[in-house]
Amino acid sequence: MAQEQKKLVEAITAMEDDFAQWYTDIVKKADLIDYSSVKGCTVLRPYGYAIWENIQKDLDRRFRETGHENVYMPLFIPESLLQKEKDHVEGFAPEVAWVTHGGDEKLSERLCVRPTSETLFCEHYSNIIQSHRDLPKLYNQWCNVVRWEKTTRPFLRSREFLWQEGHTAHATAEEAREETVRMLNVYADFCRESLCIPTVKGRKTDSDKFAGAEATYAIEALMHDGKALQAGTSHYFGDGFARAFDITYTDKDNTLKYVHQTSWGVTTRLIGGVIMSHGDNNGLVLPPAVAPVQVVILPVAQHKEGVLEKARELKERLSRSFRVKLDDSDNSAGWKFSEYEMKGVPLRLEIGPKDIENGQCVLVRRDNREKSFVKLDGLETAISSLLSDISSSMYEKALKNLNDRTYSCLTADEIKSVLAEKGDGFIKAMWCGSEDCENKVKELTGAGSRCIPFEQEILSDKCVCCGKTANTMIYWGKAY
Amino acid sequence: MAQEQKKLVEAITAMEDDFAQWYTDIVKKADLIDYSSVKGCTVLRPYGYAIWENIQKDLDRRFRETGHENVYMPLFIPESLLQKEKDHVEGFAPEVAWVTHGGDEKLSERLCVRPTSETLFCEHYSNIIQSHRDLPKLYNQWCNVVRWEKTTRPFLRSREFLWQEGHTAHATAEEAREETVRMLNVYADFCRESLCIPTVKGRKTDSDKFAGAEATYAIEALMHDGKALQAGTSHYFGDGFARAFDITYTDKDNTLKYVHQTSWGVTTRLIGGVIMSHGDNNGLVLPPAVAPVQVVILPVAQHKEGVLEKARELKERLSRSFRVKLDDSDNSAGWKFSEYEMKGVPLRLEIGPKDIENGQCVLVRRDNREKSFVKLDGLETAISSLLSDISSSMYEKALKNLNDRTYSCLTADEIKSVLAEKGDGFIKAMWCGSEDCENKVKELTGAGSRCIPFEQEILSDKCVCCGKTANTMIYWGKAY
Repeated sequence: MAQEQKKLVEAITAMEDDFAQWYTDIVKKADLIDYSSVKGCTVLRPYGYAIWENIQKDLDRRFRETGHENVYMPLFIPESLLQKEKDHVEGFAPEVAWVTHGGDEKLSERLCVRPTSETLFCEHYSNIIQSHRDLPKLYNQWCNVVRWEKTTRPFLRSREFLWQEGHTAHATAEEAREETVRMLNVYADFCRESLCIPTVKGRKTDSDKFAGAEATYAIEALMHDGKALQAGTSHYFGDGFARAFDITYTDKDNTLKYVHQTSWGVTTRLIGGVIMSHGDNNGLVLPPAVAPVQVVILPVAQHKEGVLEKARELKERLSRSFRVKLDDSDNSAGWKFSEYEMKGVPLRLEIGPKDIENGQCVLVRRDNREKSFVKLDGLETAISSLLSDISSSMYEKALKNLNDRTYSCLTADEIKSVLAEKGDGFIKAMWCGSEDCENKVKELTGAGSRCIPFEQEILSDKCVCCGKTANTMIYWGKAY
Repeated sequence: MAQEQKKLVEAITAMEDDFAQWYTDIVKKADLIDYSSVKGCTVLRPYGYAIWENIQKDLDRRFRETGHENVYMPLFIPESLLQKEKDHVEGFAPEVAWVTHGGDEKLSERLCVRPTSETLFCEHYSNIIQSHRDLPKLYNQWCNVVRWEKTTRPFLRSREFLWQEGHTAHATAEEAREETVRMLNVYADFCRESLCIPTVKGRKTDSDKFAGAEATYAIEALMHDGKALQAGTSHYFGDGFARAFDITYTDKDNTLKYVHQTSWGVTTRLIGGVIMSHGDNNGLVLPPAVAPVQVVILPVAQHKEGVLEKARELKERLSRSFRVKLDDSDNSAGWKFSEYEMKGVPLRLEIGPKDIENGQCVLVRRDNREKSFVKLDGLETAISSLLSDISSSMYEKALKNLNDRTYSCLTADEIKSVLAEKGDGFIKAMWCGSEDCENKVKELTGAGSRCIPFEQEILSDKCVCCGKTANTMIYWGKAY
């Protein structure tokens, strides 16, 4: 083997030693991203981008099934437009990128690069909505947005990121509220079914609401290290934006009314969630539904007669049902094993002279390394069933992590000691509803409020902080 | 019918009266776009964006079949990075949007919003290409770009637009040249097969090359009004960018060599091309391959028993094979006919009580209004065959327009008189190769050089301008 072929798959930092470094190692060594010369703006390489494309396809189907249509809004928001809704501009102005010049000319008004597109959708809705017959408007957009973050990490917090943003307008508050929850459920279903990630659904406290929202709902996932990841949000706006942008319709009774609006979004951050939910010390472990390669075929003793032919035949055959890659390069078997473990390919298919003789192949699962000998007749059925088993196991494992690391506490001191003894996780605790207590808990324990879960439990009748009457259970935790 | 339901489909300006206004009317009244408050940045509405999504899907398949992978590069290019290739920055700096502030802070270096991403791909390629084994790199990106144009028109010239940009790196000049032409052919095939638009393939003159390219190739289409539309370009860079960005690889002989590169792109401008190639005075005429709705079902006398049920049954059945919409609103039949003509839906399916009795329906073609009665048994086959006929007819009609409006001229005076007598079109004429003559012809006649077609003819041995020896035939014309 020539010198340059002896490329080795470098080992990554163990997650127990340094979780942040483990994460960064995977992101780089699984060829997901490359850094660019602009801080917080990364290159999504083919393997990383393909995961996003699969996420897109899956979610897009779910959006269409719930009646949504795709549109594309401009990248730029004039400063005066951004300022129309007071809370919104206060929330976003500090973190937007400003365009001040076009070529050599100074612009008469600064334009911000969209950090989110509520204002643009509102401007458009005020143009196109006149009658109750124009409602609801159920729009979604796939695009890039920019937020000038101080600290950045690939996928988790970047200055430019890819996302989808749904923006809907409804005749009544009730319909809009229903939409808000419907889309949160779509996100939770997607995370469970396609990313194998369990989430807690709930409402954000008022201090944590989206800028301009009446209520913000979120799904919260728990990573390997016990930190929470907000995986998707859905906002109910009431008629606040409609009043600011004058979006009205003539109702059946011939009166003019304001529309009620929602918005909801998920981002490339989900890829970070996949890494930290499923990855291990050998690299990525990808959910079959979004894996760019579901089955990698590795010929064994490929110089022997008939092996490569059989491998190619299998590649062609299986490609009709799955996303398949054949690696017939002259890299060593050991290198190939490591490489596709690093890349998290759900199933490895090995086929050598003896297998061919026996009309079988070897299938090895990425998630638990289980090996099985499978007949080539009916191979598709076996692979389908294995991929489905892998999904279930991955979900169960992630759910166990979430359950094992969710603790109930009655006092702030108890939160502190649980976090100190058991490490990070979700803390369920009662809350009186005051922002003071919310802040104090965070100050004392480092764990902020994640959400007020839809599934409430009565752990006690006293606030974990002030001891006064409390009716609300909150999930607390440290978060990405 | 209530007052508000009596919405009429407003007539559009006739193209013979005012072609530009006809175009703008269609763009607005077929619900393709809405204007935003930033000049040159438009909203792509669901119907307009769906055309782009269909173009994307089709082209993306063709790119994959030719071995390309999708990636995503950052939106921002630092000024110093843009400046690395001299010709490139000279071409683009005058028309880029500059970001100077992030939140309240002034950036230490200005960032331009990508007008095109050669510099970003080059930076990335210099990171990831080391050996001949890393080549070729065949990448493509779907994204938005920004060019600060002075004059703007929806789809044809906008400050922000959507496009794809392929960027490839190869071991040899020959391979890169082959790629350049391969992708031009992919574009031409796509235009012919999916957009029903014939194009002339050729090379741009040196004065019309892409900034930083050694050679630029283009496909040129001819619109209804006889003006040319550059529909796609493919650039050969040689090793110019590789030298500027130090993109080298170790070859098999162990020497360090520069890569050779290409880039190629098409944009949402193609939608403008579809409008101006096929549209008529009743609105859009969409090629079946990219039409968001291929068949619109209009129930006739829908209040009569069984009609709506049958229409819904057909909608469900046909949706398995086609993109189908059922309009069972209570708008009048006349309104519906006009509306879906305006929107360019290739086939209208009418079904009423008598049709149901006879086990048939009525199919009406948008392109030539031909009506046929078709049995419900085997309806799918009939629709497939009609859609395919529509595509062929649309292509033939556009080809006839191109051929009828292509003239051969031997002198500049002849060009002037042909344009004056017959209106705009393509002028084939010989050229000596000097930029002076190229400029002079444009000055004298208003027709610039469009391309040096691959299919050369010898019309004479003299330049149309200076009369000196000429070996090159050029297509001249006015262009969008």
